[in-house]
Amino acid sequence: MKNKEYVIGVDLGGTKIVTALCDSECRIIARVKTDTMPEEGINKTIRRINESIYRVIEMSDICPTSISGIGISAPGPLDASRGIILHAASMGWHDVPLRDLISMEFGIPAYLENDANAAAYGEARAGAGRNFGNIVYITVSTGIGSGIVVNGSVFRGKHDAAGEFGHICVELEGRECSCGNKGCLQAYASGTAISKIARERVLDYPDSSILKLARRNPQLINCMTVEKAAYEGDSLAVKIWHEAGARLGQGISILMQLLDPDIVIIGGGVSRAWNLFYEQMAQTVKKHTYSLISNDMLIVPAQLGENAEVVGACLIALNKGV
Amino acid sequence: MKNKEYVIGVDLGGTKIVTALCDSECRIIARVKTDTMPEEGINKTIRRINESIYRVIEMSDICPTSISGIGISAPGPLDASRGIILHAASMGWHDVPLRDLISMEFGIPAYLENDANAAAYGEARAGAGRNFGNIVYITVSTGIGSGIVVNGSVFRGKHDAAGEFGHICVELEGRECSCGNKGCLQAYASGTAISKIARERVLDYPDSSILKLARRNPQLINCMTVEKAAYEGDSLAVKIWHEAGARLGQGISILMQLLDPDIVIIGGGVSRAWNLFYEQMAQTVKKHTYSLISNDMLIVPAQLGENAEVVGACLIALNKGV
Repeated sequence: MKNKEYVIGVDLGGTKIVTALCDSECRIIARVKTDTMPEEGINKTIRRINESIYRVIEMSDICPTSISGIGISAPGPLDASRGIILHAASMGWHDVPLRDLISMEFGIPAYLENDANAAAYGEARAGAGRNFGNIVYITVSTGIGSGIVVNGSVFRGKHDAAGEFGHICVELEGRECSCGNKGCLQAYASGTAISKIARERVLDYPDSSILKLARRNPQLINCMTVEKAAYEGDSLAVKIWHEAGARLGQGISILMQLLDPDIVIIGGGVSRAWNLFYEQMAQTVKKHTYSLISNDMLIVPAQLGENAEVVGACLIALNKGV
Repeated sequence: MKNKEYVIGVDLGGTKIVTALCDSECRIIARVKTDTMPEEGINKTIRRINESIYRVIEMSDICPTSISGIGISAPGPLDASRGIILHAASMGWHDVPLRDLISMEFGIPAYLENDANAAAYGEARAGAGRNFGNIVYITVSTGIGSGIVVNGSVFRGKHDAAGEFGHICVELEGRECSCGNKGCLQAYASGTAISKIARERVLDYPDSSILKLARRNPQLINCMTVEKAAYEGDSLAVKIWHEAGARLGQGISILMQLLDPDIVIIGGGVSRAWNLFYEQMAQTVKKHTYSLISNDMLIVPAQLGENAEVVGACLIALNKGV
């Protein structure tokens, strides 16, 4: 075991922190999951991150000096080159130099990357994107994001802001989005959008099983309710998923027309309802994408599941940044 | 003059062929413009290309052996790596191995690139994009296209089809496009779209100066008519340009959210009506793009004008491909 290299990956989210220690082949040796509890303040959350790192070192029983770096996946927007979280709405953070705080605690290099890019990098190197050079990874969950990998490297753009797939305008005077704009893809196809649309429409469908599953209280409807109702065959729920699929397809067709990627990988919690939206999504992609591009299109589910970010963070540390 | 390197660039279009000979600093030494006349058949058009190349060599009075390569810009879709024009609707060409035909005629290497990429490369290296790494070049003319330059190189995608900006779907069940799909950006903001929309709407505005300029025959309305009428202050014409600007802004905001480029450069014939659409375009971009990205946005007119493609073709030859 001597002289072997190990790295640590941290996936910091608004509700959970996932931390893993892996070897140079990116095999996970130890993994812990803990609550973020952002309401307790920044310092306490950072202490929880540090504790989780100490824990995986302890669990894996390796010599701490063989750990060469720490990769951190965090919500954006952030400045990867300076290692600063600019603004993380889910935690109420502003201008937190997380990379240096972690690096100083452990005395080894740390690397900060936004969560969509980290997951994209994980899927690109160790998931569904292995063997491909140009990859778009889309995460559909509460919100919608994406990471673009060009020739094996994360494509960041001028302000580290490339890949804002959830906030491309798919309808000029469209639905209001949580970001304050109108017509964003996220306002049509995210988990939040699906539950919001269901809450609006269910009033006209008093017999919908969506309402029954929510104990007749529209406020209790969430994305899972609409998913369950759709699997029960409820026509309103099925329609809502089809429409979300079509919008996702519109967005993916735009990506494909612009980037002609080798593969599009879809991850995130909502993507687990694959069968409810795939058909409509694929049809819309086919309809709005040149056949040259779409004929051999690869749109596949992510393979790393909820580990995409933490595996990506480990790979970033192994690679000493991306 | 001995031992100096020269290259030739050819810009093959549906109506014109522009050919230039330039030195290693990409200064144009000789340039000719001739008609494509595709109706006379492929062989005659290729003969006209060859003649134009012989002519610029003659005009520049240099030793033909000092010419190291020929770059060719042509309408797509084409296969740059194999040097084949797959399908050029404007000329009725299918599967023409243009690169090798030209290379064999002159006994020197030739390089084929689609026109939007060639123009993007020209503007990136010798035009408005000098000093920037990640560039999107948009051409708004009869149709709409784009070329994406990443870290100084043309980004091609899996099928050489990246940058199909004119055919991204900006409205799911929108206007019919010449490509057969619905809702493409090109159906809202191209020169063809502007004249088509004017022809449709002018019937409800019998006093519009668009109609007067077209001698009261809607069939005679073209993009220039709508441009002239707008400069005269005609409210319908102004509105049509504003709407086209807003759609272009929607498309550019999508590009900026996805790619966060250093600069967006707009060229093509329609872009000369800059003052008629810029304001509305910029407003829409600002509205639908994250402030982090849009605050210091650079959206500028192209600098090389109608020479963008031929200069790009020369640069591709100087660079021995891109």
